Amino acid sequence: MKKSTINNLEILRHSTSHVLAAAVLEMFPEARFAIGPAIENGFYYDFDLPRTLIPEDLEILEGKMKEIIKVNHPFERAEISAKEALKKFEEANQPYKVELIKEIEKDPDYKLPITIYKSGSFVDLCSGPHLDSTGEIKADAVKLTKISGAYWRGDEKNKMLQRIYGVAFETKKELDEYIRMMEEAEKRDHRKLGKELDLFCFSDLVGPGLPLFTPKGTIIIDELKKEVEGICRKYGFEKVSAPSLAKQELFEISGHAKKFGDELFHVTSEKKHDFVLKPVQCPHQTQIYASKTRSYRDLPIRYMESDKQYRAEKTGEVGGLSRVYAITVEDGHSFCRVDQVKDEIKNMVNIIKDLYSSIGLWGNHWISLSVRDYSHPEKYIGESKDWDTCEKMLQEISDEMGLNAQRREGEAALYGPKLDFMFKDATGREIQIPTVQIDFATPKRFGLEYINEKGEKVPPVMVHRAILGSYERFLVLLIENFAGAFPLWLSPVQAVIIPVSEKFNSYAKNIHSQLLEKDIRVSISDESESLGKRIREAEKQKIPYMIVVGEKEEKDGSVAVRTRGQKEQETLKIDEFIKKIIEKIKNKS
Amino acid sequence: MKKSTINNLEILRHSTSHVLAAAVLEMFPEARFAIGPAIENGFYYDFDLPRTLIPEDLEILEGKMKEIIKVNHPFERAEISAKEALKKFEEANQPYKVELIKEIEKDPDYKLPITIYKSGSFVDLCSGPHLDSTGEIKADAVKLTKISGAYWRGDEKNKMLQRIYGVAFETKKELDEYIRMMEEAEKRDHRKLGKELDLFCFSDLVGPGLPLFTPKGTIIIDELKKEVEGICRKYGFEKVSAPSLAKQELFEISGHAKKFGDELFHVTSEKKHDFVLKPVQCPHQTQIYASKTRSYRDLPIRYMESDKQYRAEKTGEVGGLSRVYAITVEDGHSFCRVDQVKDEIKNMVNIIKDLYSSIGLWGNHWISLSVRDYSHPEKYIGESKDWDTCEKMLQEISDEMGLNAQRREGEAALYGPKLDFMFKDATGREIQIPTVQIDFATPKRFGLEYINEKGEKVPPVMVHRAILGSYERFLVLLIENFAGAFPLWLSPVQAVIIPVSEKFNSYAKNIHSQLLEKDIRVSISDESESLGKRIREAEKQKIPYMIVVGEKEEKDGSVAVRTRGQKEQETLKIDEFIKKIIEKIKNKS
Repeated sequence: MKKSTINNLEILRHSTSHVLAAAVLEMFPEARFAIGPAIENGFYYDFDLPRTLIPEDLEILEGKMKEIIKVNHPFERAEISAKEALKKFEEANQPYKVELIKEIEKDPDYKLPITIYKSGSFVDLCSGPHLDSTGEIKADAVKLTKISGAYWRGDEKNKMLQRIYGVAFETKKELDEYIRMMEEAEKRDHRKLGKELDLFCFSDLVGPGLPLFTPKGTIIIDELKKEVEGICRKYGFEKVSAPSLAKQELFEISGHAKKFGDELFHVTSEKKHDFVLKPVQCPHQTQIYASKTRSYRDLPIRYMESDKQYRAEKTGEVGGLSRVYAITVEDGHSFCRVDQVKDEIKNMVNIIKDLYSSIGLWGNHWISLSVRDYSHPEKYIGESKDWDTCEKMLQEISDEMGLNAQRREGEAALYGPKLDFMFKDATGREIQIPTVQIDFATPKRFGLEYINEKGEKVPPVMVHRAILGSYERFLVLLIENFAGAFPLWLSPVQAVIIPVSEKFNSYAKNIHSQLLEKDIRVSISDESESLGKRIREAEKQKIPYMIVVGEKEEKDGSVAVRTRGQKEQETLKIDEFIKKIIEKIKNKS
Repeated sequence: MKKSTINNLEILRHSTSHVLAAAVLEMFPEARFAIGPAIENGFYYDFDLPRTLIPEDLEILEGKMKEIIKVNHPFERAEISAKEALKKFEEANQPYKVELIKEIEKDPDYKLPITIYKSGSFVDLCSGPHLDSTGEIKADAVKLTKISGAYWRGDEKNKMLQRIYGVAFETKKELDEYIRMMEEAEKRDHRKLGKELDLFCFSDLVGPGLPLFTPKGTIIIDELKKEVEGICRKYGFEKVSAPSLAKQELFEISGHAKKFGDELFHVTSEKKHDFVLKPVQCPHQTQIYASKTRSYRDLPIRYMESDKQYRAEKTGEVGGLSRVYAITVEDGHSFCRVDQVKDEIKNMVNIIKDLYSSIGLWGNHWISLSVRDYSHPEKYIGESKDWDTCEKMLQEISDEMGLNAQRREGEAALYGPKLDFMFKDATGREIQIPTVQIDFATPKRFGLEYINEKGEKVPPVMVHRAILGSYERFLVLLIENFAGAFPLWLSPVQAVIIPVSEKFNSYAKNIHSQLLEKDIRVSISDESESLGKRIREAEKQKIPYMIVVGEKEEKDGSVAVRTRGQKEQETLKIDEFIKKIIEKIKNKS
């Protein structure tokens, strides 16, 4: 943890992790301690314990933590030599701490004495900082939330330890709000809803981290694809299609081989093939640009593609749709002249505005102007003067478009600064998806050129943009934001026809065909179930319209329509209903 | 070569290869001979020669062949022991023949004496049969066509030999027709036209066998996708989306791991991942079926997907779009009850009819009823009685639908018999793409089930179907069939606006916007070029409509339209033209 970035909440949370450790020590005198950092909303601590924890233990530990807080032990800092520290923790039979001290000793950058912190009878190897005393923690704003397994140092070859997670806030009100949000998030969890709504599935034979999309999930993804590609086409983007494989050399030139390192998937065969699965799409798109001589009159050339990109995530970390081995990214690039960059970026900002307006998230956002970490230029490729030009240009765009972008150091991409768009979803979580990035470096690395007005060959600028990021993660956002009640235009089933009895099956089928002909996604409820059950099933599936038909409706050529989330039922002529639903689909309302 | 399948043409062509070898021997007494089989339209022979052949050598060799034919040497057959044969070819300094004889000797199945054929001074190790004498060959119906390199026994570790290709027919007329067809095919070659029309490209950094589709190529593929998916949706298919990767186990269960062997691509990482890139799509689709309990009322369940599948083709064999590492296959399956199979197949035959009618190939086709090789049951999976049922069912369907399918033994798939559709393209070549296959075996292997009317769990039947096969190869077919002059609905640029001078640029832009708004793919010609050059360029690009605008057109709000392939120019009001082109796109005319 860098000192400069530590804020009060982090100090509070990290101090609370020491209190947890002290409570564990009371409960298990044989406990061996690993590490206990602050994390988002709270902290964790990893322990090597004589027995497996059960959920009931958390309550006992919380009780002990309350007592320790009440006693108000001071956090006492002390500096000791590595030798003293080794002796101390060896005597205390704390092998994990001993391993850490030995490593610190070997680190050539480590010149300071080792610090330890003591609170009550618990002493920890720790660089701090901490609160002044345990009493500064609000006992009613702390909660232990979860027990899980974690390998020592994250390495599968090491021993599996027990990790206790907790949250800590400055006030009880904040804790309550957090708990409410978590409960809401659990109800909206995409894995749970994904199964209930039959959107995607997993197979042991295929493997975890490799989701299979059912017809319903595929409809949502296809609708999104149509929408985002339609918007981008209006702004001059053209679809291209590149292979998933390439020689590793392609990514060595782009710098991605180094950047992704052991996250690259290697593709080989008994016939001695040796490829890499693309971790990003930019390098392939440069090669389409490079396939022809380009003139200044041809620019900007704008490519887009929705394709899978692959990352060898850690086996233990894949889960649901949030972390998978292949994400389908809607990626796009504009190859342009320097004098066109500003308009290109404005163009892309407008695309982002259009898409996020269509799902109701625009307005509830802020924008980061992500620039270099000026103290670590080695983390980036490209020339310093190009970086200066780009960062200045983004600031001008923010001013001219009234974006009010906020400068964030160290958040730039490998090859240039960027605008990142942060949205809040319905549960209050912040989500970062769209991004616009200027890149002078990549075109030069690949020797891309165009012939300028003077007949000289010069490199174009590349502007990268992501609009919805990956379809997998965007689907997670949509499921959790709408709690599965998708907007009409995205709903896999837009209407279900429910005949009140078998007698009206033929009328139901008649309506079914009329709706299908208008490309409305409609189904007929399972006739073997009771009317009540069929209505409850349609509610559970969060289908926007239930079309109930019986004697009256058949006689009148009408339908009784129940709109999702509304109690009243409305009777409409079938033509009126069709007109209405088509209009609503078109307007994305 | 199996004796039973040898026909007269093959005997003629193989005999001609001996004449070629005799001619080579006259020209290069040091020549060493490898093998010289008959192939489609002709033959080849591989030689180890003291120098590299040049194209002019073919003419000299053709001259020598004519002489040998004229002399009318008899083909004299002799049976000798392996020992004698070895002695003979060792003395003649023919190491390749010696290697072949040693191998024949070791083959436990080889019980017959070895045969040699002599014609003039040339003696070859050969199982025959041959013509009676060289004079039976029509000298004016033979032509040597190409020199290329070929590894001895196709193995890169062996020496590279020189291969001479030739064609041979029974009459000069047939040879002339063949040459005309080849010239036509060369003009239509998809690699040549693909570049000229800017449809796809290759990059040294990405690698051969990995095509990148430009915006124009991508438009054609997307239009095809829309068309085929639209047709299939009408017939009840639903899109799904599966990952490219899976554990190898998935393909071991399906039988594909064994079938594809060293054609499988393995995906690994430094984090010890171990996956396979899918060589086919069926196994993934079974896992979507398996993700829920299915009832007899749910069937048929029809899935389709257009996705890449991967084959580790030999490095030296990839080229153009015909042989690539990943093909994007439009694949689909119906999971159904036995009593539904016939209707499902008829459904699929109708889909095939719809699509091939829309590109004008339906009618110019024949259908193969591809059944087992009854003498080699070990090549297939599944039970014999299921095979009998399926083969009978396909025969009934052929009869009921009047398909006149022709029974072909040994052409079945791994898991069941099939209907294969063979079309003739504009150059007269036969192309096999669509197929419908019954499969009782795969569902059982994966333990797929549904609950039947009695409440029992029973396996469904799987019916496989391919409609356009892979988009890559279908694009080859389209390019070569239409010689790049795609039907309007598939043309990447449907109309180009050509203002006769700069003065009419604003009128051109006005028309451009009107067409764009109607989703017509339209461009404006490059104003920096002369009028003549712009017209020639539009012709070269085979754009369906040229819209020429000048003073008269601007005044009248009209356009002068030149239709591709027609000499006359037609003047229409702009609205009339828009109406006409939209109608033609819609009707695929």
